Amino acid sequence: MNKKKIINDPIYGFINIPYEILFDLMEHSWFQRLRRISQVGLTQLTYPGATHSRFHHALGAMHLMWESIGLLRGKGISITEEEARAACTAILLHDIGHGPFSHALEGTLIRKSHEDLSLEIMHALNDQFRGDLGLAIKIFTGEYPRVFLHQLVSGELDVDRLDYLGRDSFYTGVVEGKIGTNRIIKMMNVVDDELVIEEKGLYSIEKFLMARKIMYWQVYMHKTVLAVEKMLISAVSRMQMIIDKNGVPQCSQKFHRLLAGDNSLELFLQLDDTDAIYALKNHQMFSDPLLSYLSEGILKRKLFRSRLSTKPFSVDTSEKILEQLVNTLDIDENTARQLIFSGSETTQFYDWKPRQIKFLMKDGRIRPFEEISDLGDTRHETTKYYLVYPKMGM
Amino acid sequence: MNKKKIINDPIYGFINIPYEILFDLMEHSWFQRLRRISQVGLTQLTYPGATHSRFHHALGAMHLMWESIGLLRGKGISITEEEARAACTAILLHDIGHGPFSHALEGTLIRKSHEDLSLEIMHALNDQFRGDLGLAIKIFTGEYPRVFLHQLVSGELDVDRLDYLGRDSFYTGVVEGKIGTNRIIKMMNVVDDELVIEEKGLYSIEKFLMARKIMYWQVYMHKTVLAVEKMLISAVSRMQMIIDKNGVPQCSQKFHRLLAGDNSLELFLQLDDTDAIYALKNHQMFSDPLLSYLSEGILKRKLFRSRLSTKPFSVDTSEKILEQLVNTLDIDENTARQLIFSGSETTQFYDWKPRQIKFLMKDGRIRPFEEISDLGDTRHETTKYYLVYPKMGM
Amino acid sequence: MNKKKIINDPIYGFINIPYEILFDLMEHSWFQRLRRISQVGLTQLTYPGATHSRFHHALGAMHLMWESIGLLRGKGISITEEEARAACTAILLHDIGHGPFSHALEGTLIRKSHEDLSLEIMHALNDQFRGDLGLAIKIFTGEYPRVFLHQLVSGELDVDRLDYLGRDSFYTGVVEGKIGTNRIIKMMNVVDDELVIEEKGLYSIEKFLMARKIMYWQVYMHKTVLAVEKMLISAVSRMQMIIDKNGVPQCSQKFHRLLAGDNSLELFLQLDDTDAIYALKNHQMFSDPLLSYLSEGILKRKLFRSRLSTKPFSVDTSEKILEQLVNTLDIDENTARQLIFSGSETTQFYDWKPRQIKFLMKDGRIRPFEEISDLGDTRHETTKYYLVYPKMGM
Amino acid sequence: MNKKKIINDPIYGFINIPYEILFDLMEHSWFQRLRRISQVGLTQLTYPGATHSRFHHALGAMHLMWESIGLLRGKGISITEEEARAACTAILLHDIGHGPFSHALEGTLIRKSHEDLSLEIMHALNDQFRGDLGLAIKIFTGEYPRVFLHQLVSGELDVDRLDYLGRDSFYTGVVEGKIGTNRIIKMMNVVDDELVIEEKGLYSIEKFLMARKIMYWQVYMHKTVLAVEKMLISAVSRMQMIIDKNGVPQCSQKFHRLLAGDNSLELFLQLDDTDAIYALKNHQMFSDPLLSYLSEGILKRKLFRSRLSTKPFSVDTSEKILEQLVNTLDIDENTARQLIFSGSETTQFYDWKPRQIKFLMKDGRIRPFEEISDLGDTRHETTKYYLVYPKMGM
Repeated sequence: MNKKKIINDPIYGFINIPYEILFDLMEHSWFQRLRRISQVGLTQLTYPGATHSRFHHALGAMHLMWESIGLLRGKGISITEEEARAACTAILLHDIGHGPFSHALEGTLIRKSHEDLSLEIMHALNDQFRGDLGLAIKIFTGEYPRVFLHQLVSGELDVDRLDYLGRDSFYTGVVEGKIGTNRIIKMMNVVDDELVIEEKGLYSIEKFLMARKIMYWQVYMHKTVLAVEKMLISAVSRMQMIIDKNGVPQCSQKFHRLLAGDNSLELFLQLDDTDAIYALKNHQMFSDPLLSYLSEGILKRKLFRSRLSTKPFSVDTSEKILEQLVNTLDIDENTARQLIFSGSETTQFYDWKPRQIKFLMKDGRIRPFEEISDLGDTRHETTKYYLVYPKMGM
Repeated sequence: MNKKKIINDPIYGFINIPYEILFDLMEHSWFQRLRRISQVGLTQLTYPGATHSRFHHALGAMHLMWESIGLLRGKGISITEEEARAACTAILLHDIGHGPFSHALEGTLIRKSHEDLSLEIMHALNDQFRGDLGLAIKIFTGEYPRVFLHQLVSGELDVDRLDYLGRDSFYTGVVEGKIGTNRIIKMMNVVDDELVIEEKGLYSIEKFLMARKIMYWQVYMHKTVLAVEKMLISAVSRMQMIIDKNGVPQCSQKFHRLLAGDNSLELFLQLDDTDAIYALKNHQMFSDPLLSYLSEGILKRKLFRSRLSTKPFSVDTSEKILEQLVNTLDIDENTARQLIFSGSETTQFYDWKPRQIKFLMKDGRIRPFEEISDLGDTRHETTKYYLVYPKMGM
Repeated sequence: MNKKKIINDPIYGFINIPYEILFDLMEHSWFQRLRRISQVGLTQLTYPGATHSRFHHALGAMHLMWESIGLLRGKGISITEEEARAACTAILLHDIGHGPFSHALEGTLIRKSHEDLSLEIMHALNDQFRGDLGLAIKIFTGEYPRVFLHQLVSGELDVDRLDYLGRDSFYTGVVEGKIGTNRIIKMMNVVDDELVIEEKGLYSIEKFLMARKIMYWQVYMHKTVLAVEKMLISAVSRMQMIIDKNGVPQCSQKFHRLLAGDNSLELFLQLDDTDAIYALKNHQMFSDPLLSYLSEGILKRKLFRSRLSTKPFSVDTSEKILEQLVNTLDIDENTARQLIFSGSETTQFYDWKPRQIKFLMKDGRIRPFEEISDLGDTRHETTKYYLVYPKMGM
Repeated sequence: MNKKKIINDPIYGFINIPYEILFDLMEHSWFQRLRRISQVGLTQLTYPGATHSRFHHALGAMHLMWESIGLLRGKGISITEEEARAACTAILLHDIGHGPFSHALEGTLIRKSHEDLSLEIMHALNDQFRGDLGLAIKIFTGEYPRVFLHQLVSGELDVDRLDYLGRDSFYTGVVEGKIGTNRIIKMMNVVDDELVIEEKGLYSIEKFLMARKIMYWQVYMHKTVLAVEKMLISAVSRMQMIIDKNGVPQCSQKFHRLLAGDNSLELFLQLDDTDAIYALKNHQMFSDPLLSYLSEGILKRKLFRSRLSTKPFSVDTSEKILEQLVNTLDIDENTARQLIFSGSETTQFYDWKPRQIKFLMKDGRIRPFEEISDLGDTRHETTKYYLVYPKMGM
C-alpha cells in the first residue's frame, strides 16, 4: 500500500506525506477526530468562509515543516532522515490535544492546556507505535539539542504560526492578514543550530508582523467573534451548573461526563465540536430559560452586543447594563452578572526581548530584528477593552 | 440598524448585501441552519479543505447575481429595482431546501428533491414576509416572462453553477476545475429577454465546460467520495431498518422522527449535518454490528474499497465479492448484498440540444455554441462504472 | 466604430474604456509614444520582469479612477457624467509628460518636471480637442472646487499611486509590496467633497503604508537600481559635454537636439526610451573612452558598485576611491569625480501633517490616521546614504 | 563572488541560479542582449501588458528545468550533477538565437531558424567556455541517450513551452490560457529514460491542451497581432528593396548590414528590437511614401485591417481590395499587391501520432493520451483564413 499520498490543498497546491509514519498517524482515529474540530471555533458566524478544521491545519503545518527542511538541506544544513521524520511527526501532532471548539473552551470546559494534552497524547501514541515517536517528543518539548528543530515547531517564526496565520487569513478572506509564507521559508537558515532569517528577508518579516497584528484584531479579537465565544462559555458554564444542581442537561452521555468533570484522556479523545453543537441544539427548548436563550442565540445567530474601546469601560456603564438586564430579561442579579463579560486584551507589535527573530547579515553577523528594521520602536502595545452583554429586547 | 453589510469572502473579496430583505432572510433561523450543512457532504474525507457550507454558497451565488445585474445594467439592459431584489432573493433561497448531507441523502432519507423543498420553504417565508417574495418565487419557477432572470437562477450558465463550481474547486484545491467566473459574467448580455454570451467570451465558455467536466470526475464522482456516500446511505438505511424492526437507533429525537418517515417541513427545518454525525458517533458501539461497522468506518475513515472502470463489472466479479463478504464479515447474503454498490454515471461534455448556450456575434446574430466552437464534436459522453464494497479484513 | 473597448490587463483582468474621448486620446500618437517609455526606467536590469510601460500604467490608473467613481456613486455621492469623464481624462494624461527613461533623466536631460510637461501637453491637446479637456485640466491642477476629484488624481491615496505601487510590485515580483487596491477603493467615501476612508479600511491603509515603504527601499532605491540610474545620468552628461566641446555624439538627430538643449515640446514628443538606448548602443565603441565605458556597462550589465549605509560615508572613503579610480581607469581627477555619486535618501513611514489620510468613523466623525492607528509613532524617518562608483578592474 | 543569485519573478516568486556556469552565461553580453528582444514581438500593441523579454523567458524555462530535475530526483530518478547542469544550460540558451522581433522576422529578415542560430551560438560559447557546454549541446540536439533530458528541453511537454505559454498568458492577461505548470511538473516521471506523466495528471494535461489552443487563437494568431506582424514584414521588405535599388534607408549601420544580407553571427549578436524600432522611427518621414506609411502605422498604431474567417476569402474579395488600394493610396498595382496578405493557419487540438504524451498508469502500464482521455476525438483541426490589408482613408 502506497502511504506516500499527495493531498490537494487550496493554499499550497499539494501536500506530500513524506514518511509512512505520518500516514499511519493521520489514519489514527485520534487524529481523524481533528476533522470535526474547527480551527477557529465559531468564527464562521462572523466570517462564513472560516470552516476549516484542525485536521487541515495540522497537515498544512507538516507541509511547511517538510518544505523548511528541504530548503535548509539545500543550503547545506545537514538534517538526518531521523530528524526530518521526527520534526514532521512533532508538528503533525502539535495540536492533537485540542478539544471541542479549540481555544474557546480551553481553560473552562477543558481544564488542561492543549499543549499539555498534545504531549500526553503523543506519549500514548508513542506506546502504540513502540517508541517510534521518541525523538519527535524530544523536539516538541525542546529537549533535543538541535534547537532549530524545536524552533520550527514552536518559536517566534514556527511553521505552526506560519500555517495558521496564512490559513486563517485565507479562509476568513481577510487578505490584509496574508503573509508571505513561502518567502519567509526561503529566507530561513541555521547558524549554530539556531534558526535565523537571511538579511534579504527583512521586509517579509516586517510584513509578517503587520499581518499578525491585523489578524489579531481583525479576526481573533473581532468583537463579534468575542461575543460568540463569551456566549459559548456562558452556555457551557450553565450546563455545568445544572449538573451541579443535579439537573440533567440534554447532551450526549460523553459530553455530560466532560461537563461533570471527567478529565480522562480516553473520554477527551471521543469528543469534538459535534458534541457541543448537539448540546446547544437540544437546549434551545429547555427548562432553564437562560441556557435556552444562550443556545438559541448561538445557533440562530442572535448574538450578544459587543463593544470594544481603547479606554476601560466605567463601572457605571456595566452597572447600568446589569440593571437593564435584570429588568428586561427578568433574571436575578447574580445570573445577569454572569452574562456580562468585561476585560481587556493587549498585544505588542514586536517584543524586543525574548525569543527574538535573528537575522543573518550578508557579512555573516547575527543581529536581532530591532537593530536592522527601520520601523521605529516596534514595541508599542495596544490594549483594547471589551464589554459583552445580551442585547435587550433580543 | 445598518443591514447593508459587507461580508468577507475568500473567493470574491467582499460580498455586499444590496437589499434589506436579503439581510432579513439571512438572519432567519431557517437560513442560518445552512451554516451547519456542508456544501459537498463528506467530500472533506477526500479533500480536507472542502469544509464549506451551503450558507456560504448561497451568499456567493447572491453576490454573482448582483454582479451580473450590475453588469447587464451597465450594458443598457433595464432591470427594475423590484426585479433585481427578487432575483437576488430567489438565488439566495435556491438551496434552502437542502437537508443533512445535501445530495448524498436526497432521495433516500429525504424523500423530496431539494428544489421542491426550497420552493415550499419560499412559500412559507413569503407568508411570513407578507407576500414580499412573490416575484422571487415567479423568477425561481420560471413563470416570470423575462426569462433571463430565471436563466440566471437556473440555466446552463446560472450563477448557482458558477458559484458552486468555483467554490468547490477553490475549497478542494482542484485548481484544474477553476472557472473564469468574473470573465463569464462580463461577457453576459441579454437579447429579447434571453441570456446570451458575447462572442469574445467563447474561450471562457470552452474553459468552463472543460473545468466542469474535470470537477465532475475529479470531485463529485471521485471514487473515494463515492465510497463515503454509499457508506452513509447504507448506514442511514440500516438505521431505518432498525426502526422498522422496532429497534431504537441512538440518535436525536428529531433525527429519529425523520428516519421513521416524518416528512413535515417543520421537522426538516430543524435538522442539519450535526444530527447525522451525532447518530454516526453514537452507533460506533451498537448492538447492530453492521451499523457499528459503517458508522465507525465513516468517522475513522476506514472506507470501502471503490473501483471505477470504463467497462461494466462482470456479474462474476460481484458474486465473488459477495461470497468473500459473507465469509469474512460473517454476515448473511442478504446483508452482504446491501453493502455492494454498483452502477454507472454518464456525463456529456456539452449537450447540443436543450438549454443551449447562445452567443451574440459581433455582427448581431445569435448562434449556438456548437456552431462557433472549434472543439470538434463536443457531444461525446463518458460513462464510468463503479463498484463499491467493504474492504475485507478492514 | 466602437470605441468602448475592453483591454486585457494582467492585474485587473479587464480595463474598460468608458468614454469615447479616452479612446481618442489613447489613439493619439503622443499617447502611443508612452508604449516606448518604460515605467521604471532600467529597473529591469535588477528585476527582469519590470518591463512594463507608462502606457500601461496610465490605462491602469484610469481603470482605478473609473472603479472609484462607480464605487462612490454606489454610496450615493453624486458625480456628474461630465465630472467622471474629466476625472478619467485627467488621470489618463497625468504622466504624458514623461520622457525617455522617466524619472532617471528628469531634472538632468529633461529640464522641466514631468508634471509641468503633462500640463503643457494637456493644454495642447485641449486645443486639438476644441476645449473638451477644460474640466480635466481644472481637476488636474486642483482648481475645481470638488476637491476629492483632484485628490483621486493627486493626493495621499490617489489612483496614480495605487496603480504604480501595485503594478511595480506585480511586475518586479516584489510581493511584499503588494497593496490591497481593490479593498482601499471599496473603503473610499466622500464627506464635504473631501476624500475619506471608512473606519473599516484602517488595516488596508496600514498595510498600504508598509507596502509603500517596502517598495521604496526594495525597488525604487534598490542599490543596483541606483547604480544603473547614476550610470545613465553620467552617460547622458558625457554626451552633453561632448556636444559642448563640439564633438558629435552617435545618436539620432532628435536626441542630439535634446542633448544640445532644445526644450521644445514638439521635439520632446518625438522621443522615447529607444532614442536613449540607441545612443548607448552606438557609443559602446566611441572615441571618448569614458562614454564607451558607461554605455557598454549599462548594455552589458557591467554595473557600478553601489553601497548603502545607515551612516554617512566618510570623506576619506570617497577620496580613496577617487585615487583608485584615477589610477585604475587612467582618467583625470575631474573626470573621476564625475563617476562617484554620493548622497542620501530619506523617507518617512507616514507624515502626520500635510495631506492627511482621514477616516470616516462609524459614528460619523472624521479622524486622521494617526489618531486611530495603533502602530505607535509612525513618523519615524529612515535615511540611507549611498555611494556609487565604478568597479575597479571591471 | 556569490553567483548563486536569487532573482524575483512575478510568476514563480523566486528563480534560483543553481550553477555558476549559468550565472556566467547570463552575464555574457550575448545573453544580456535578450533583454532587448521582446518575447512576443509587437503583441503589446494588442495586449499592453505583453512587454516581457526573451531574457525573462529563458530564465523562467531554466527555473522550470531545475524544478523538474528536483522533482524527478525526489521520485528516485538518478540525474547526475553533470546532467542537471547541462540540462539547465541547454534550456537557458535554447532561444539565444532569436533576433529582432523574434518570430515575426524569422524567415524574412533573419534567414536561419532561431534553433539553428541558437546551436551556432552555443558552439561559439562552448569554445569560449573551453568545452564546458559539450553535454548541454548534446542534450539540446537530442544526441544524448537519456532522452527525457532532451524531451524536457524540446518535446511535447517541454519546459520551454510550459514557460512561454504560462508567461504569455500571464503578461497578456489572457487568463483563459493559464496552465497548471506546477502541477504538470509534479506529475512528471521517467520510465526507461523517457518522460511520462502520471495517471493522476490527466486533467492537468487536458487543461493544458485547451489552454494551448486558446493561447494560439487568442494571442499568437489574434487578428490585430497578425496585422502588426504583416506590417512589420512589409516595412522591412521595403527597406531591403530600397537597398536593392541603391537607396539608403535611415537606420543604424548594423541594421543596414543585416538588411543588405550580411548573415554573419558577429553582426547578428549586436542587433535587437531597438535597431528595428529605431529604423521605423526614422522612416516616419521618408522619401518612400509606402515605407513612411508603414512605419508611422506601426508606431502610431494605425493598423491594417485584419479579417479572420473559417472559410477562404474569394479571389474576388482580394481583387476588389487591390483595386481600391490602387485608387485610394495612389500606388501601382504591384506595390498594392505587397500590402495585401492572405493565407491560413491550421492547428490541431492534439495530434495522436508523433511525440505522444504518455501516461504512467497506476498499474505500471504506459498508455498514450488518446487512450485514457474521455475528450472524444481530439485530433480535430481548426483552420482560419486571414486577409490583412491597409485601411482605406487611414
